[in-house]
Amino acid sequence: MKKIKVIAFDADDTLWVNEPIFTKTQKEFKTLLEPYLTGDEIDTKLYNAEIRNLRLFGYGVKGFMLSMIETAIELTQGKITGSEIQRIIDLGKEMIEHPIEVLPNVEETIKLLQDQYELMVITKGDLFDQESKIARSGLGIYFSKVEIVSEKNEQSYLNIIRKNNIIADEFIMIGNSLKSDILPVCKIGAHAVHIPFHVTWAHELVETHQIEGVAYQELADISLLPELLNQFLIV
Amino acid sequence: MKKIKVIAFDADDTLWVNEPIFTKTQKEFKTLLEPYLTGDEIDTKLYNAEIRNLRLFGYGVKGFMLSMIETAIELTQGKITGSEIQRIIDLGKEMIEHPIEVLPNVEETIKLLQDQYELMVITKGDLFDQESKIARSGLGIYFSKVEIVSEKNEQSYLNIIRKNNIIADEFIMIGNSLKSDILPVCKIGAHAVHIPFHVTWAHELVETHQIEGVAYQELADISLLPELLNQFLIV
Repeated sequence: MKKIKVIAFDADDTLWVNEPIFTKTQKEFKTLLEPYLTGDEIDTKLYNAEIRNLRLFGYGVKGFMLSMIETAIELTQGKITGSEIQRIIDLGKEMIEHPIEVLPNVEETIKLLQDQYELMVITKGDLFDQESKIARSGLGIYFSKVEIVSEKNEQSYLNIIRKNNIIADEFIMIGNSLKSDILPVCKIGAHAVHIPFHVTWAHELVETHQIEGVAYQELADISLLPELLNQFLIV
Repeated sequence: MKKIKVIAFDADDTLWVNEPIFTKTQKEFKTLLEPYLTGDEIDTKLYNAEIRNLRLFGYGVKGFMLSMIETAIELTQGKITGSEIQRIIDLGKEMIEHPIEVLPNVEETIKLLQDQYELMVITKGDLFDQESKIARSGLGIYFSKVEIVSEKNEQSYLNIIRKNNIIADEFIMIGNSLKSDILPVCKIGAHAVHIPFHVTWAHELVETHQIEGVAYQELADISLLPELLNQFLIV
């Protein structure tokens, strides 16, 4: 194994809190619909709308807002009021403006690594949202490159490493999603470290058989990353 | 003047039709609101909502959809029905799936230029939408780089030319928007060619005094571009 030269970090739920903001909004969305209906039907219908709309909207808050509105109209048979729909839009706007909560040990670890490695961010989703979050996180200064892609798959990782003249075996990806941050990276011959987050969007979950035989590392906390990278050197 | 080495094209209303799709949808949106109110108030209110929401949503169809919904709720004092709001969402989805209509002479001209110059696309807006449009246009094969940015200003052009090791004096931008494609490019010492399109979104218009003293070329049609570039060589 060669020495790792480039470390790329996922952003949402790796560098800062993201999924809990969606979860909180979804809870408020369910409260809003309580006068019309109850139960878990709302979660299922909303998830179905999100997945159905991914093809047209991609990832991000704006698509989530539109999927909430569609779900509300469908589940109330069109009885939802204009002011209730405005409330859904306002919930979405609050998500976009939500303060960035950098995860514990992230900045300290990145500071430790910045002299020895080239650091990047590779994140998927809405260009406008992600740029805003990177700027507001204050972490932008540590990264030589920020790549915002519409989907994280083998092809998009290949494009990024080719474009930046990176050798796959010298590249390691750090992230919380097995589906987006680990599997496609390992498949192109690069390295990956999984740092699980306490909640994961259902769409990012993978079946056990998909990760069988895939060689990646798992860490409980980002603060353990420098030591892991030192071990890479010895192998 | 040095020889031009890199030609960058704007996408919407330079390579393919875009603004007329927004105009057509806005007309249908006004028809939808006819039972509640009439007149030009709708256009003004919608434009105000779009500009107010730019800060949160950025450019693109999803933000336009959300601004239409907000405007409809506001102008009908919340009386708009769920099914009418679903109709607005469906109008937006039709925009996203609208077939790409490549403008006349675009492909022929690009084919002529591709051997002699490095060709790029620089477009602003929604990452997901713009990637989809480039793919569906069939023009992707001619461009060595596609840069999708959230805003076109001096800083974003500087970032692009630095990142790609381009010398400003060897770079020319081709586009229909004086505000986004011409002014910021000339200000960083690069070259620009304005090819006006028959409709321009109000937000992209500039005051006459803003272009006074700015040196750029204007062409009536993209097919005149190869000859103009040959003249650049002689200067």
